[in-house]
Order: sequence, then C-alpha cells, then structure tokens
Amino acid sequence: MNATPSSAINLQHKVSLIDGFWTPRVVAEMNDYQFKVVRVLGDFIWHSHADTDETFLVLDGTLRIDLRDGHVLVKPGELYVVPRGVEHKPFAEQEVQLMLIEPRGVLNTGHEGGERTAQNDVWI
Amino acid sequence: MNATPSSAINLQHKVSLIDGFWTPRVVAEMNDYQFKVVRVLGDFIWHSHADTDETFLVLDGTLRIDLRDGHVLVKPGELYVVPRGVEHKPFAEQEVQLMLIEPRGVLNTGHEGGERTAQNDVWI
Repeated sequence: MNATPSSAINLQHKVSLIDGFWTPRVVAEMNDYQFKVVRVLGDFIWHSHADTDETFLVLDGTLRIDLRDGHVLVKPGELYVVPRGVEHKPFAEQEVQLMLIEPRGVLNTGHEGGERTAQNDVWI
Repeated sequence: MNATPSSAINLQHKVSLIDGFWTPRVVAEMNDYQFKVVRVLGDFIWHSHADTDETFLVLDGTLRIDLRDGHVLVKPGELYVVPRGVEHKPFAEQEVQLMLIEPRGVLNTGHEGGERTAQNDVWI
C-alpha cells in the first residue's frame, strides 16, 4: 500500500517546475497507473500504444491530436482518451500544458522509439 | 478496442448536466478504468476501497477529505489519490464539482453499502 499523501497535488504548480518540452514528469500514482504532467510545443511523431489506452487532460492551451482520419482539439478542462493501437500525433501550435494518465512503464513514443523518446518514470 | 472518440470531453459541461449530489456519472473509459464526474455537497460516510486506490480531481470548489489521522483540502486543479484500504470521508461545505478516476465497478460507498450507495456505471 502506498503511504497516504499529506496534501493534494497542484497540477499547474507541478508543470511550472518543468524545464523544456516533451518530457513527461510523474506527479502521482494510482494502482499501477501514473499521472504525468508535460509541456509540449510544436510537432511530435506518429506513434501508438499497442497495449493501452492513453488519456490526455489539458491544463492550459489547445492541444491538437492528429489521427489518421482527422484530428481532435483538446482545450483546458477537456479530456481525450486515445484507444489502444490508434496512431496519433500530438501537435501544439503554442505551448500546451497537460496531464497524461496511463499505466506505469508506457513510453511517450510508444513502440516507435527514436530520439524523441523521453526518459521514463521521472518524478517531479 | 474502443471506438476512437470524435471529440474531447468537456468536464465542466458534463458536470453541469447532473441533477443532484453524490451521483457519479461516467464520462469516459481508459482500459478498465472510468472517469466519473460528480457534484457533492455536505457530508458523506466513512468508507474505504479494499482493492483499489481512488483519485479525486477537483474542478470547482474546495473538497475536504477527512482521514482518520487528519484531513486534506483539494482545490480546483488539484489531484489527490486515496490509497487502497484507507478510510476516508469526503466533505463539501459548499458545492464541489470533481472528477473521480477508479476501476470500473467501484461503488461510491466502498464496502459500506447503505442508502448513500449510488447506482453504478451510469453515463452522462
């Protein structure tokens, strides 16, 4: 059992501590899932996660998630779940701050790998 | 595999559709987890969830979560994870709107049951 946290986690505060973009930082865990905050700007790579859905909750800015058959806009206070296996490419014309929710161990680039792959399981 | 959603989910809009308090409504699923929005006001009952952690993300208002050894305040944009097995009692002096994240099938009253138990798995 995890220790009982002594206080709540302020997501905007946590994201303000991050230097740079596309580097998710873990802020909390629920069972074997992690809550991660991240700042994004510009284009990411096409990828998918074969084994899990992935949730995006936008805190600030407007995130565009490109899908092979269209795109979705996700604004502050909005949630979007990319189903497992679905190719997607996040894009932020201006900086977007968001929270990701996914199982522990999921890499930001899915099975694509490459230079855009961030170090995993880094807490802030 | 779930169908790919055609648009994001606005949490404030979803919660505005709910009549009454303490009746969680499902807005999305991620694997075998559910995102639920709920309006709460006043006192709930002491309970725990033996098999799972439970996440509270406050959208509006200030939620107090009483624990047997103190309490935690959770404000808008803040997240709190109650570890499995930990007794807790949500309290809202004024209305609070929040999102719950937990596995499908979790009841709001845990193993306590009783008249405060809401119907489960109702979507909005």
